[in-house]
Amino acid sequence: MNPLFQQPLQVIGLGLAGFSDNLRAAGGKVLHLNWKPAAHGDSGANWLLANLVNDARIEAANRQALQQFLDAQPVLVDAVPASEAIPAMAGGERRILHAGPPIAWADMCGPMQGAIAGAILFEGWASNIDAASAMAQRGDVALEPCHHHAAVGPMAGIISPSMPLWVVENRAHGNRAFSNFNEGLGKVLRFGANGDEVLARLRWMRDALAPTLRQALRSAGEIELKPMMAQALHMGDEVHNRNAAATGLFFKRVAAHLARQTQGVSALEFIAANDHFFLNLSMAACKSMLDAAAGVRHSSMVTVMARNGVNFGVRLSGTGDRWFQAPANPVDGLFFPGYDVNDAAPDLGDSAITETAGLGGFAMAASPAIVKFVGGTPADATRHSRDMQHITLAQHTAFTLPALNFAGSGAGIDARRVVDRGILPVINTGIAHRLAGVGQIGAGITTAPLTCFVDGLAALAGQLEQ
Amino acid sequence: MNPLFQQPLQVIGLGLAGFSDNLRAAGGKVLHLNWKPAAHGDSGANWLLANLVNDARIEAANRQALQQFLDAQPVLVDAVPASEAIPAMAGGERRILHAGPPIAWADMCGPMQGAIAGAILFEGWASNIDAASAMAQRGDVALEPCHHHAAVGPMAGIISPSMPLWVVENRAHGNRAFSNFNEGLGKVLRFGANGDEVLARLRWMRDALAPTLRQALRSAGEIELKPMMAQALHMGDEVHNRNAAATGLFFKRVAAHLARQTQGVSALEFIAANDHFFLNLSMAACKSMLDAAAGVRHSSMVTVMARNGVNFGVRLSGTGDRWFQAPANPVDGLFFPGYDVNDAAPDLGDSAITETAGLGGFAMAASPAIVKFVGGTPADATRHSRDMQHITLAQHTAFTLPALNFAGSGAGIDARRVVDRGILPVINTGIAHRLAGVGQIGAGITTAPLTCFVDGLAALAGQLEQ
Repeated sequence: MNPLFQQPLQVIGLGLAGFSDNLRAAGGKVLHLNWKPAAHGDSGANWLLANLVNDARIEAANRQALQQFLDAQPVLVDAVPASEAIPAMAGGERRILHAGPPIAWADMCGPMQGAIAGAILFEGWASNIDAASAMAQRGDVALEPCHHHAAVGPMAGIISPSMPLWVVENRAHGNRAFSNFNEGLGKVLRFGANGDEVLARLRWMRDALAPTLRQALRSAGEIELKPMMAQALHMGDEVHNRNAAATGLFFKRVAAHLARQTQGVSALEFIAANDHFFLNLSMAACKSMLDAAAGVRHSSMVTVMARNGVNFGVRLSGTGDRWFQAPANPVDGLFFPGYDVNDAAPDLGDSAITETAGLGGFAMAASPAIVKFVGGTPADATRHSRDMQHITLAQHTAFTLPALNFAGSGAGIDARRVVDRGILPVINTGIAHRLAGVGQIGAGITTAPLTCFVDGLAALAGQLEQ
Repeated sequence: MNPLFQQPLQVIGLGLAGFSDNLRAAGGKVLHLNWKPAAHGDSGANWLLANLVNDARIEAANRQALQQFLDAQPVLVDAVPASEAIPAMAGGERRILHAGPPIAWADMCGPMQGAIAGAILFEGWASNIDAASAMAQRGDVALEPCHHHAAVGPMAGIISPSMPLWVVENRAHGNRAFSNFNEGLGKVLRFGANGDEVLARLRWMRDALAPTLRQALRSAGEIELKPMMAQALHMGDEVHNRNAAATGLFFKRVAAHLARQTQGVSALEFIAANDHFFLNLSMAACKSMLDAAAGVRHSSMVTVMARNGVNFGVRLSGTGDRWFQAPANPVDGLFFPGYDVNDAAPDLGDSAITETAGLGGFAMAASPAIVKFVGGTPADATRHSRDMQHITLAQHTAFTLPALNFAGSGAGIDARRVVDRGILPVINTGIAHRLAGVGQIGAGITTAPLTCFVDGLAALAGQLEQ
């Protein structure tokens, strides 16, 4: 009993758990709050936050950026070679796009080097892998991020001039975004494999699949992607690492049109055999929605999260094309038999554009079955979606989560909230072997590094002082 | 304070809530249990239960029936006219099968009469609806339940000799089950519509769709349905009233094979436009699995639940082909604009075979998005699945529910548990207009009537005494 008040000592504790333990040992009743200092205790970040939280210019800019993101209406309009879709690839130069923020050949991880060498062979610029690697090493091929050209690619994210791209147009604002075609699982270029099987498939995709799909799209008419993605969320997908339903919906939409084409049967067989086929369409749709929100001065909304296998890069709407980078985190997940985390390349790929748009890790509550692929339990999946709602500006108006009673998925990551809450964006992702040529070895969950967001806020703070 | 024990009065209450209220008002601490007398207080049923609970013969029989049900491996093997599939329909007689337990023409609900009249026109046995109805009225057409011929049909469940049927074979035991083809939504025969549009579609299904699908199946090879249904449960279906994912999976499986057929494009278009297409395959698969469990002497496991729009009928494994019937319950749900419960026919159709097999209402936890179609909340859907586990013999080994951490769906309804717990099987269903010719007016949830199960147990008790 507390002698002053004639009743048991009751304490709310926060901070060090030891204080609460002592009080409990002394007979007190303690409610210990799960409180953590902002920005994981980084004092510089806390100074930044003090200047940025509740800043009216940021609030207004975020409202505008969020609205432009939510208003976007991505429509699949075409499938064309990269050299037609992307002006910088039209000139016949040796240029290859890759995932994540900019990185020099010498610094790239194994799977990205392997994929680039494979793309050089695919383009016929070299005749074997060693010659291709040497060509890249010499700087005879321009290497640039997909994101510098309104494009996105999963894992290594390699786009070379003759590869076919999806063309997605955001009808609300007129901007276009692009992604390559999904090759399936197993030995594929995006995981760094570059053998004959991989190159033969890429040639078939270029010469047969893409023209057939292009004709089918002309027959089918434009395909609105947002309702398809929203529907897939009600069918167990989170539309990043699980696209079984979305692929099925897309397949149903185009099947009869494909069946009318000369090579329609093989196209149907290829798509039906690859539950990840829709991933690249999801990514292009997300890119087109987020590009609509880019460049709103003072906005702290995140418009890009992307990884090159070495660094994780973030862009904020208010800081435009600047990248804020930090070393990419490892991926914790389920590995295929014979592999473990020591075999894994760091987090890789542009596919975190889906999380940036409120899908993937942010929408895991819609996808309890994905835990069989990435690890954890359905309760973890739901918790991730709830957590992400603490770092986003709003609930998405189109992407809703049945398991959360149809609440909208967290939409519009606010870099301030990430830093303030110390809650890192959760990303579902595939795991590539760290060496070129091996391919996928698992799938799992990772997070974006905090310092990207702190650095972004620092740049935003500098902008506000001007 | 209770003067005897020098501590507050603490009471566990059960029965009338008023006792607990009084104790609470007097300062007592009361935990009032949500207890209900067995069989909703029916003393006759309680006498029955006293004799049947823990009976070793029933326990052994149920283990056998359950195992045969769980072991079943339904495989889609063919699509043929009813006159080829069902011996009783081969002789050229005027015979039509209908949903639910047996019922005379004069007693049938409007949509069933409408559908039968439509089928008579479809077969060319009469030239207009009035003549068709008169023919049925005169008894010039034999009318029998689908279930008497290893067949099942949704809603009115009408099968006439020239209609195409799915042929599903249970590879584990060799028995076959049949269902008709799904016509889609809107004005369709199974909801009692019988106009030109309905008959033209049925003719196209017979003359074009069925032969095309038959050829495609021969090209595709046999299709295992159980894994497809299990996968659909992980994609938001409960595989009764929501079959969007299952239809997509089936569509993906056969699309390339359909594309090779002369009329493949129109078949692809028809299936792609009907998210309920898989329902009839699900039903035939369930029928084949449950027929494998039928006729195990002394078993109280439910092998059939079916409704004819007037009565709800149940069969138990141990009582073989006997029907136990009670008036069908109304359906509570979401009505299409302009309709309400007063327009609705009572519960109708053989599709409750899916609930009998642990799907539909029993698997609603897998299908939170279905509440947009049948009403309620995702929490209700999960609760239904949990409740059904109280009246079943086991958790299903193949049908698992992600939202319940991949627990198996309740499998093998034990009529004793239904009566003992007073928990009625929950059924997701479409709602037909009570008049012939109108069609579907909504979808919702209903329950099986208790007395069917009590009557079944009485018959089982008589058998045990012999």
